[in-house]
Amino acid sequence: MKRNTKVSTAVIRRLPRYYRQLSELQEAGVVRISSSALGKSMGLTASQIRQDLFCFGGFGQQGYGYKVDSLKEEIGEILGISQGHTLIVLGTGNLGRAIIQNFRFSANGFQLLAAFDVDPAVVGTRIAGVPVRHTGELEEFIAANRVDVGLLTVPIAAAQRMGDRLVEAGVKGIWNFTNYEITCASQDVIVESVHFSDSLLALSYMISQREEDNL
Amino acid sequence: MKRNTKVSTAVIRRLPRYYRQLSELQEAGVVRISSSALGKSMGLTASQIRQDLFCFGGFGQQGYGYKVDSLKEEIGEILGISQGHTLIVLGTGNLGRAIIQNFRFSANGFQLLAAFDVDPAVVGTRIAGVPVRHTGELEEFIAANRVDVGLLTVPIAAAQRMGDRLVEAGVKGIWNFTNYEITCASQDVIVESVHFSDSLLALSYMISQREEDNL
Repeated sequence: MKRNTKVSTAVIRRLPRYYRQLSELQEAGVVRISSSALGKSMGLTASQIRQDLFCFGGFGQQGYGYKVDSLKEEIGEILGISQGHTLIVLGTGNLGRAIIQNFRFSANGFQLLAAFDVDPAVVGTRIAGVPVRHTGELEEFIAANRVDVGLLTVPIAAAQRMGDRLVEAGVKGIWNFTNYEITCASQDVIVESVHFSDSLLALSYMISQREEDNL
Repeated sequence: MKRNTKVSTAVIRRLPRYYRQLSELQEAGVVRISSSALGKSMGLTASQIRQDLFCFGGFGQQGYGYKVDSLKEEIGEILGISQGHTLIVLGTGNLGRAIIQNFRFSANGFQLLAAFDVDPAVVGTRIAGVPVRHTGELEEFIAANRVDVGLLTVPIAAAQRMGDRLVEAGVKGIWNFTNYEITCASQDVIVESVHFSDSLLALSYMISQREEDNL
């Protein structure tokens, strides 16, 4: 697909939300949706929706709205869902285990290959079918298997070191849950951090505003 | 503080990031920072920074930059960090447990009062000092204690029902980790959902773009 290559971060951040919303519409049996209805369900204006989607080649027909399944497919394509990305998890504490057991990797186009830990009690076992290897085998594993993304759920003290090892071993991205801002020596590796606190503080702000409004 | 009350969602979403960045600068001993340096560390332009902060009353002095500690304090104030918000956790599976054990609630201005579960093996125990009560006691607990936010990490099948119970019991916000879009009958309750998939798909997009660029 031909598309504008300069896309703002804000639009990139909205794309997964479109994809999620369209998946839910599809599951609910909705075939077509107008930009205003799609916008309403996402807290955006119709014109915002049209602008966003125009960045990616402007599907949709004036007066007819968007076909849910094809729009979902196109956005999925843009997001790289069909590219068969692969992933490993570093750290099988409570959070790592929760993600391995519950996150729908395949629905997001990712294949979870293995998990790594140093705890002898878990090395050699499987979590939800995923083999847990010793962290000492990390480089060997990445050399033998194409690994696109390393998910970090190790303790903070180990975050930077494990990030460095992933970069050195040649991953393309790090999905960082450690709450530590790892610095990445390579321009070629993308670090995406999940900060629970950003979400809680936004909620804190909205609650505080609501309280002020109600005074 | 006097401030503009119409603030865009995008700015609200950036405020926690400012707060986090400023906390890190403060810990690193930085006293003053220019809008361009602050912007660079956050992937924003200096003018974007000035615009954002202007929304909240425009601190900072032309040519002198921002004082890290007072800017952090003011943003913390805006975010409601000093308001002593309280929170309970519903569901003590791996994810709930990980959050109770590792998330720095107090650094974000929240006090974690209790956790709730139905599993007899955990009810009556403590996780990182936090008492686990039976979910049957939820309403009674909220009636007896001011609870601002309910954090949901229950299984998807229970998400809507537990959300309804929280709303009915009078919480102001729901911090939703269930990956289920709960609908909220009350306009007065704010639902903030954490979607891991949005983060992974943004990473997927950036990796795919990087690959295309390198072809």
